[in-house]
Amino acid sequence: MPLLERVPLLEKNLSDYAEVVEPGTIERIRELAAPLAGARVLHVNATAYGGGVAELLATHVPLLRAAGLEADWQVMRGTDEFFHVTKSAHNALQGADIEWDLRDERVYLERTVDNATALEGEYDFVVLHDPQPVAIREFVRGHRFDNNGAKWIWRCHIDLTDANPRVWEFFRPYVEQYDVSVWTMPSFVPESLEMDRVVQAPPCIDPLSVKNLDLAQPFVDEMCRSYGVDPGRPIMCQVSRFDPWKDPVGVIEAFRIAREEVPGLQLILAGSMATDDPEGFHYWELCEEARAGDRDVFLLSNLQQVGAVQINAFQRAAGVVVQKSLREGFGLTVSEALWKGRPVVGGRRGGITLQIEDGVSGYLVDSVDECAARCVEILSDAETARRFGTAGHEHVRREFLSTRGARGLAASLQRPERHRVRSWR
Amino acid sequence: MPLLERVPLLEKNLSDYAEVVEPGTIERIRELAAPLAGARVLHVNATAYGGGVAELLATHVPLLRAAGLEADWQVMRGTDEFFHVTKSAHNALQGADIEWDLRDERVYLERTVDNATALEGEYDFVVLHDPQPVAIREFVRGHRFDNNGAKWIWRCHIDLTDANPRVWEFFRPYVEQYDVSVWTMPSFVPESLEMDRVVQAPPCIDPLSVKNLDLAQPFVDEMCRSYGVDPGRPIMCQVSRFDPWKDPVGVIEAFRIAREEVPGLQLILAGSMATDDPEGFHYWELCEEARAGDRDVFLLSNLQQVGAVQINAFQRAAGVVVQKSLREGFGLTVSEALWKGRPVVGGRRGGITLQIEDGVSGYLVDSVDECAARCVEILSDAETARRFGTAGHEHVRREFLSTRGARGLAASLQRPERHRVRSWR
Repeated sequence: MPLLERVPLLEKNLSDYAEVVEPGTIERIRELAAPLAGARVLHVNATAYGGGVAELLATHVPLLRAAGLEADWQVMRGTDEFFHVTKSAHNALQGADIEWDLRDERVYLERTVDNATALEGEYDFVVLHDPQPVAIREFVRGHRFDNNGAKWIWRCHIDLTDANPRVWEFFRPYVEQYDVSVWTMPSFVPESLEMDRVVQAPPCIDPLSVKNLDLAQPFVDEMCRSYGVDPGRPIMCQVSRFDPWKDPVGVIEAFRIAREEVPGLQLILAGSMATDDPEGFHYWELCEEARAGDRDVFLLSNLQQVGAVQINAFQRAAGVVVQKSLREGFGLTVSEALWKGRPVVGGRRGGITLQIEDGVSGYLVDSVDECAARCVEILSDAETARRFGTAGHEHVRREFLSTRGARGLAASLQRPERHRVRSWR
Repeated sequence: MPLLERVPLLEKNLSDYAEVVEPGTIERIRELAAPLAGARVLHVNATAYGGGVAELLATHVPLLRAAGLEADWQVMRGTDEFFHVTKSAHNALQGADIEWDLRDERVYLERTVDNATALEGEYDFVVLHDPQPVAIREFVRGHRFDNNGAKWIWRCHIDLTDANPRVWEFFRPYVEQYDVSVWTMPSFVPESLEMDRVVQAPPCIDPLSVKNLDLAQPFVDEMCRSYGVDPGRPIMCQVSRFDPWKDPVGVIEAFRIAREEVPGLQLILAGSMATDDPEGFHYWELCEEARAGDRDVFLLSNLQQVGAVQINAFQRAAGVVVQKSLREGFGLTVSEALWKGRPVVGGRRGGITLQIEDGVSGYLVDSVDECAARCVEILSDAETARRFGTAGHEHVRREFLSTRGARGLAASLQRPERHRVRSWR
């Protein structure tokens, strides 16, 4: 059942953003977009909801439209088996020790061929996200979809610093067929990649989405109470999937240490779960074990109807937000929390280091003990917390709002300069 | 990958419900539950989120626990192919003209065997929901899971009035192996079903869930504005999946007619979408076509981050809530809207007729024209709207809150009387 679906989108107006973004931003987007008016852009990824890429596209594509481009978003179709294989690939590319053999490659390629054949429409730019759809480029060669001279862009959202060589060598030739690859950080790009054009652009958050909308304090308190959390006592919060890279068990350990210094402290671990993802349930169980019945540790997810508004409320309710990832492409939740003026303690990993200015808007940490100590510091010092929050909000406003992302893409679509990976090193 | 997962749940306290439910309800639950203290109850269904059954169980299971039972909820595992087959079965059982052959039966049974073998734990009562897991009962015969003398209960949430005979005859023998079957309405039970014990119990809503929580008017307005809806103009709203049974296109037609009498009227059609459900996208596209670019018709879903809180807000913002189903097991959204004091116009179908008292808390309708006319009536007459809302709220409080469901189950687990289908006719 291969099928690329056009994802339905909200309409967005650039002018709605004028109030919250840096002065001049909207004008600059219009300027950059003018020569691209009417350009047909297709984004393709693996899912229409759940996960950071889907969230990004839900704002990015409407903003491109608002800027005068004809932008579409299609989602590739897979099978359980395909997504099992791409999940392995994802983990292996982030450095996990994963078995990968010819059978995985066959499953991956068969589904890719189906998707490549189903691709429809005429586009000037085709932007594929992450490894799942990357090989589609190969299989539309010679197919009518290829014949309009579209520029192909591969957007990589993950950190390939320690990529499993076997798996990376499988994907590399597919990546190298693109005209441009776009990365969150220069250090994520493998040395072995041979491409003329390698661009850096971080992801970003939508200040006007329900995830980031301003919420009244009584509503924030009510949302906490709905889930059994006492808004009158201090709260530590990490928002992320239940997987090994986010180290949720490490967060529970850090919480236990921090609580000794901050009596009454509560921990919210909130993220989304998919019934077709056994790994998520496995890590949830590990968290349940680590929690050991502690009534001040709250494990929450969409299974308890936790959606964007609740995540927003939990982030606002937190005295300190944590993102203790062991590997992190970007970590949109860090910018989300900083945007809300919350101080953040994050793992010194990947994209987190772009967002937290150590000692200015939060702290970067390398261990459970350090995480606990920094949380205690922030929770015990309202003045520092406030200062960090203000600095973080400003930093996100300048660097990580969706308007910046739209500007970045508009610029990268037309910039003639060639960036070689090695020039960054 | 067959696997039954234990769904993580919030903790609920019976006493929290005392304020909103009928006086004496909590005491009656405790009384009924006392002889069942420690009884081990397992619920099994096809999904941990998305859809009414998952919502029901997310409250029902914690309430059983709060009442002193040891209740669990496990979710069966399928494959794309399995869920494609069970979706066909679901549609056929609701009366659609669907092809169904031996291949479908083979896919269904293979996966069922896998699940039956994976079933774990010791239980006194096993409650399976809807057709997806129903045949599991057959395949645990002789398996250790069967050896503890558990009572098996099949809970049917759908309307089998016009069930496709070929498909029903496939499922019937599996249903008849249960000790009890539970139905929303007597008229849903096929004549051909031979069972000693057939019980009626409607589903119900959780007044304390985020879907039904009271929301402040400024927040409701803000949520509307986030999705482009003008809270200052009248709103008509239907919350449901994008599928033929909910007749979303009929609702758009009714909206168009109603708007002629109610200038400025807006329509919100909100529901959840799954990327693995091509039918949902197909009906979404049909709605897009019917909408034909009308900027006062809003098609919204989880793809735009619409979750339980937003649904709550849209229902509260609506001057009239519509549930124009052509076939409806129950339609939880009707009780949700009535609970919020909103007048509802619903199709005269299945479980909707249990919830709306025609002319008292809303109107039952049989056509697009009638739907439009009744919506106009309500939108033009604030006094009737208010009276309907108040009556609907009271009716739901008495009949359709989760506490009633818990009381119903506790009663049905111990009642020795035998109800025969024919006694209802």
